[in-house]
Formats: sequence, structure tokens, C-alpha cells
Amino acid sequence: MKLDIDEIIDVLSRTPALLKELLNGLSSDWVNSNEGSETWSQYDVVGHLIHGERTDWMTRAKIILNYGERLAFEPFDRFAQFEASKGKTFEELLEEFAVLRKENINTLQELKLTEADLEKTGRHPELGKVTLGELLATWVVHDFDHIGQIARTMAKQYENEVGPWKAYLSILQSRKC
Amino acid sequence: MKLDIDEIIDVLSRTPALLKELLNGLSSDWVNSNEGSETWSQYDVVGHLIHGERTDWMTRAKIILNYGERLAFEPFDRFAQFEASKGKTFEELLEEFAVLRKENINTLQELKLTEADLEKTGRHPELGKVTLGELLATWVVHDFDHIGQIARTMAKQYENEVGPWKAYLSILQSRKC
Repeated sequence: MKLDIDEIIDVLSRTPALLKELLNGLSSDWVNSNEGSETWSQYDVVGHLIHGERTDWMTRAKIILNYGERLAFEPFDRFAQFEASKGKTFEELLEEFAVLRKENINTLQELKLTEADLEKTGRHPELGKVTLGELLATWVVHDFDHIGQIARTMAKQYENEVGPWKAYLSILQSRKC
Repeated sequence: MKLDIDEIIDVLSRTPALLKELLNGLSSDWVNSNEGSETWSQYDVVGHLIHGERTDWMTRAKIILNYGERLAFEPFDRFAQFEASKGKTFEELLEEFAVLRKENINTLQELKLTEADLEKTGRHPELGKVTLGELLATWVVHDFDHIGQIARTMAKQYENEVGPWKAYLSILQSRKC
């Protein structure tokens, strides 16, 4: 599907309210459940999304627009949330994510990006040359990836409760990230 | 995780608003996108969820409570939505699902099910003996299955737009239902 900046903004804007609808006020058993050792709980995932808002998406977009390929992105820390979320309630994390996402969407809108802007290039520390359009598409897919992860993780909490229906529920056969 | 009827009701009650948050007002390109031939679009999935509200979950729960194993469930038609949704807008389907789910949740609450009720048994036409608890757990997991499917289907629309980031996005490697 061809990239459309208004559609990207529309889809990215939906995620905070969607996560609140799915997760706000759930018992801590659900919030802290995961898929086994070295997998993430809902709490961990929202912390990870917060770190992305703070250090990844718009930070990198601005590097592409201001420096092009001359300045490589900082590597993203996939484990930062284990320190950064400490002491925060899950509802605080959901709200923090909503505030940061809104700020980033506002910044993105103010940039009034053109189709030509989406072709501008930057340098990823591992992947090499990438475009601004690829970065924004990845932001969208990354949201869906973690929405899917949360759905899968929550589904698996009832893996032993569904009895013989397990055979019909493909999400229970799907693998961890 | 042990089944708790209040938690089941809580989680099932969230799905209509969550789907509206994710999908309402999206362009028809997004709504009608799928994962390739013989896979379902967002439009198809919501039609399928509607058919479940009409003929599956609470219908079967009442059969278990009223007839036990003496009356087998009717087989569920996984393709009914292709006829039933004809002529309806996607927003109409989302609203129809919300209304039906609310009615079913109200009925479920009125039953005031006990832990002993969850052990009551019925007869599935293919799977044989199942319990009411297994049916309700399956209802929950089935919601998550289709939320995950929608996230995956939407993610895949940008599969070619994410460039080299594809290697990092596990949802793009996951299979169809």
C-alpha cells in the first residue's frame, strides 16, 4: 500500500486509546502475564513503546531531515523499559505513552511532509541506508506488532482453560516474538 | 489462569470499543485489505464476529445450561458473513457487533454463573464433551485471535514500505490463520 502521510498519522493516533480500551483497569495478573521466560508482559510492552516515543521515531525522523546520512541514528535500547518503568503503575505508563504519542504526532503534523520528503535518507547503525518513508511505515507496523503481541500474550493465559477448542485457535499455536 | 466470570465479562466487554478505536473511519483500502487469497479482510472478520454473537457463544451456553450433553450444538458456519454482511457499510457492522455483544454480555451477567456452573458439560458436534467454562474461555481467546489477525493483516499492508526494517518486525514473518 502506498504511503500516505495523513493515513500514517491517523493510524498512529489511534494506538493510545486502543491500548487503554484493551488494558486499563485490568487485574495485575493480566497486566503482568507473559509468554514464558524472556518474554514481555503488557507492562513491559507499554514501557517499550514509551521508550520508542522518547528516543526512536521522531528523534530519527529529525536526524534524517537535518543531517541525512551524515549522522547515524543512536542504537535503540530494547531493554530500557526495565529500568525506566520502575515504580510506575501500569495506568501511569498508559497515560505517559498517550501524552508522548500526542506530542510526537503534533510534531509530525507540523513538519508538513511531502512525498519528496519521504524519499530522504538517513543511516541506521545496523541496517545502513533507510528512508524517512521506511521509518514512518516501520513506526506503524511496530505498533501493530505489539498490539498483536499483547493479544497473543493475553490469549495464552487461557491456553489450558479452552479445553479441546485449542485445536481451532490459531493464536495459541503462534510463537513468541 | 483460573477462570473468573467477572474477568471474562470485563475482557469481552472491551472488544467492540477496541475495534471501533482501531478501525472506525479507516479508508476502504485498509478495511478491505487481507493477507492474500482465501484470507479475511477487516470487513470479513467483523462480519464473522457478528455471526458468532448471533449463533455461537450465548446460544451454546444456553444449550449447555438447558440440555447438557443431550443436545449437540449446531455446527458453526465460518463463512456465513460473506452473505450476511452484503450491502452493509463497515461502520454498520462495527455498530451491529457492539449492540449484539452488549446484549450477550447482559444475558451472561443475568445468569449469575457460579463456579459449579462452569463445570457443566455440553456436546460439540466435532470436539465432543466440553464445559461451559471452556466455552467462555474460548470466546475470550477467539476475540484475541481476531484482534491479532487484524493487527497482522494491517501490518502486512506496509510490508514493502518498511524497507530493511522488515527483518526486525516479527509480525511480518508470522503466518496467516
